[in-house]
Amino acid sequence: MKSEIIVIGDELLIGQVLDTNSKWMATELNKQGWEVSRITTISDGADDIKEAIASAFSRVDVVLMTGGLGPTSDDVTKPVLCAYFGGKMIFDQSVYEQNLRYFAGRGLQMNESTRRQAEVPDVCTVIPNPVGTAPVMWFEHGSKVLVAMPGVPNEMRVAMKGEVLQRLRTHYGDHDAILHRTLMVFRNTESGLSERLTAFEAQLPSCIKLAYLPMPGVVRLRLTARGNDEAMLSNILDEMVEKLRVLLGGDIFCEEDTTLGGALGKILLDRKLTVATAESCTGGNIAHEITLIPGSSAYFNGSVVAYSNDVKHRVLGVPQDALDAHGAVSQPVVEAMAVGACRMAGTTCAIATSGIAGPDGGTPDKPVGTVWIAVCCGDKVVSECAHFVGTRAFIIERATQRAIMMLVDLLLSRD
Amino acid sequence: MKSEIIVIGDELLIGQVLDTNSKWMATELNKQGWEVSRITTISDGADDIKEAIASAFSRVDVVLMTGGLGPTSDDVTKPVLCAYFGGKMIFDQSVYEQNLRYFAGRGLQMNESTRRQAEVPDVCTVIPNPVGTAPVMWFEHGSKVLVAMPGVPNEMRVAMKGEVLQRLRTHYGDHDAILHRTLMVFRNTESGLSERLTAFEAQLPSCIKLAYLPMPGVVRLRLTARGNDEAMLSNILDEMVEKLRVLLGGDIFCEEDTTLGGALGKILLDRKLTVATAESCTGGNIAHEITLIPGSSAYFNGSVVAYSNDVKHRVLGVPQDALDAHGAVSQPVVEAMAVGACRMAGTTCAIATSGIAGPDGGTPDKPVGTVWIAVCCGDKVVSECAHFVGTRAFIIERATQRAIMMLVDLLLSRD
Repeated sequence: MKSEIIVIGDELLIGQVLDTNSKWMATELNKQGWEVSRITTISDGADDIKEAIASAFSRVDVVLMTGGLGPTSDDVTKPVLCAYFGGKMIFDQSVYEQNLRYFAGRGLQMNESTRRQAEVPDVCTVIPNPVGTAPVMWFEHGSKVLVAMPGVPNEMRVAMKGEVLQRLRTHYGDHDAILHRTLMVFRNTESGLSERLTAFEAQLPSCIKLAYLPMPGVVRLRLTARGNDEAMLSNILDEMVEKLRVLLGGDIFCEEDTTLGGALGKILLDRKLTVATAESCTGGNIAHEITLIPGSSAYFNGSVVAYSNDVKHRVLGVPQDALDAHGAVSQPVVEAMAVGACRMAGTTCAIATSGIAGPDGGTPDKPVGTVWIAVCCGDKVVSECAHFVGTRAFIIERATQRAIMMLVDLLLSRD
Repeated sequence: MKSEIIVIGDELLIGQVLDTNSKWMATELNKQGWEVSRITTISDGADDIKEAIASAFSRVDVVLMTGGLGPTSDDVTKPVLCAYFGGKMIFDQSVYEQNLRYFAGRGLQMNESTRRQAEVPDVCTVIPNPVGTAPVMWFEHGSKVLVAMPGVPNEMRVAMKGEVLQRLRTHYGDHDAILHRTLMVFRNTESGLSERLTAFEAQLPSCIKLAYLPMPGVVRLRLTARGNDEAMLSNILDEMVEKLRVLLGGDIFCEEDTTLGGALGKILLDRKLTVATAESCTGGNIAHEITLIPGSSAYFNGSVVAYSNDVKHRVLGVPQDALDAHGAVSQPVVEAMAVGACRMAGTTCAIATSGIAGPDGGTPDKPVGTVWIAVCCGDKVVSECAHFVGTRAFIIERATQRAIMMLVDLLLSRD
């Protein structure tokens, strides 16, 4: 089953809000073996909405929409859908009562525009929205299905997981299976890797596709299998993964599609190690990446974000001499921070950063983007001075990725 | 000038990678007064790419594309564009030499597939890419312009800022101005706010549009003015903002389009206050939100991520009695964490969290999503027990937002 996603909202087209809904929806649909063939982001304008629906239905049978369902006058999706499917608006008592309960549960008063949230087209099936006031609407017309969901991520997710996916499964019966396997590879560029895998790619079975997903210092290799015999596809994928293990050996650092924090976590768990962070310029982002992983409390004890030199000295025990002689952004300081983090949190490993995220604070010697990173495990300490060019957020993100990969590298090099 | 963005990549349609490029591009185009009227995300398939280009050009004159320009065999954008614009592929010596320098600068070896990065259509102008190996390509055909850029965010950004925006300005001459003003409002629901602003909306000049951008606990009000007299539009916007100030008073907590961390930062700076965080379940994310803001070192000293009770006790001075008697997720502990963070970092204010981000670790008494939050300023301490329903990442994000807004509320209530 092929579907398209339509995302509605002026705020997306002026860049004020980042759309995370379509990525999440695509992931969930994919897990069902359903393909998302296009994602279209359009304005809150009625004409745009109508045109985008007609265009999507010319290519696929299923359209999932998010956004444009708020109670305010800039949200026009509901009447547009009503006209498109040839219905009229009616007042839905059960939506109204659900919204009354929703407001009461939060100690809020229902007002006129919230009351209007209970108006729905008479040509749709209303799917309850237990975590908000905008109704989720299921439209069916011949072979076509359109589901309109709120743009608030949590409301969309609850609706999808709750009833939307279930209804789509019921509606569409059996389908092709789509399976993915992802290997995370380091110590290779994308093109270097592609050269090493030329022969492997040439003899891939036709049901298998290989994709390269590069990120800084890491390439994800994604094998996708498509067909109706799931067990057979799974076996072929196992074989292909085994071939890649032989070809790439220790350059594969994780055999799961996870984040760098997740990959580090698996290695730490495997080896019964623990980690702490001491962060200056990354400001807590490394700790955040590590703790986004469920179960990270098994190997993560704590962190210090040490922005001021005073905190570096008092909490992490960085010698005042080192700070005075070399400055905060220096090898002796960042190494002392890493060692101090282990001591502070009682861990076997640590990651530390000290750098200049900008846009101000750079000097000719240490321009914006200069980041000293140290990682340690037991009595091994490794450090490097990295240079990143970009915005503050970009420098923080890159330094975070590099710092995590340095610890991964240290741990895998110990063998 | 109206434009559309086309984002290419199978990895986006299966939800493996989040597209942040189009948001960034939309923001930059908007700053120039140019409208982005649609964003289309498609696969790496040649037919999809051709169809999406033709469809976009039926609506607008300018198409900006990202992605599909890697050296691997799954990236087909370059030959597709070459055929679309009726050219043939040639070897571009200057791209080749730039790539040689790029590789040499990183101590890497050029290989055959990287060499192919220098093959470009003879019907485009190549824009140098100083931070990567994929060429940026500018195609012109009659009134139409298409710019193809790499999908790697940093490469796209450097290209846009470096030459693409400049070329578009030159190509299109004068244009309508688009101005935005954003007010961040709290203590109101979206619908409650819309009701309070009914009369205001009814008498808005026709050149002004009002949009409501809700997020948890906060509504952004965005006024957009469009026209050819920028000075006049700016004056009208000033008037409208003044009216909103009178109508909404203290419910406006920030008059800038920034993050919650940015809004908090402005208040702290204004009042010459400083802040630290003590984070358990939010794992450093509050510190990260605060330190994403340039200049945050003026009011942020440091943080402790205290995952283990041992770190809570030793580093933050949370009494062992309180941990034993009430557990880590409790009012006495979170308040002691906040007070301890002030002491540890030597700040006037602090934010502390202790909760269960899940998916494991919940109990009937304290289910997953239970988060105690405390904020303090001087000797005022305020705490609350919040409940969030969703994934681990969602609970962390919501707890972060709520915690920051609690400190904003405390600071603005002091007057």
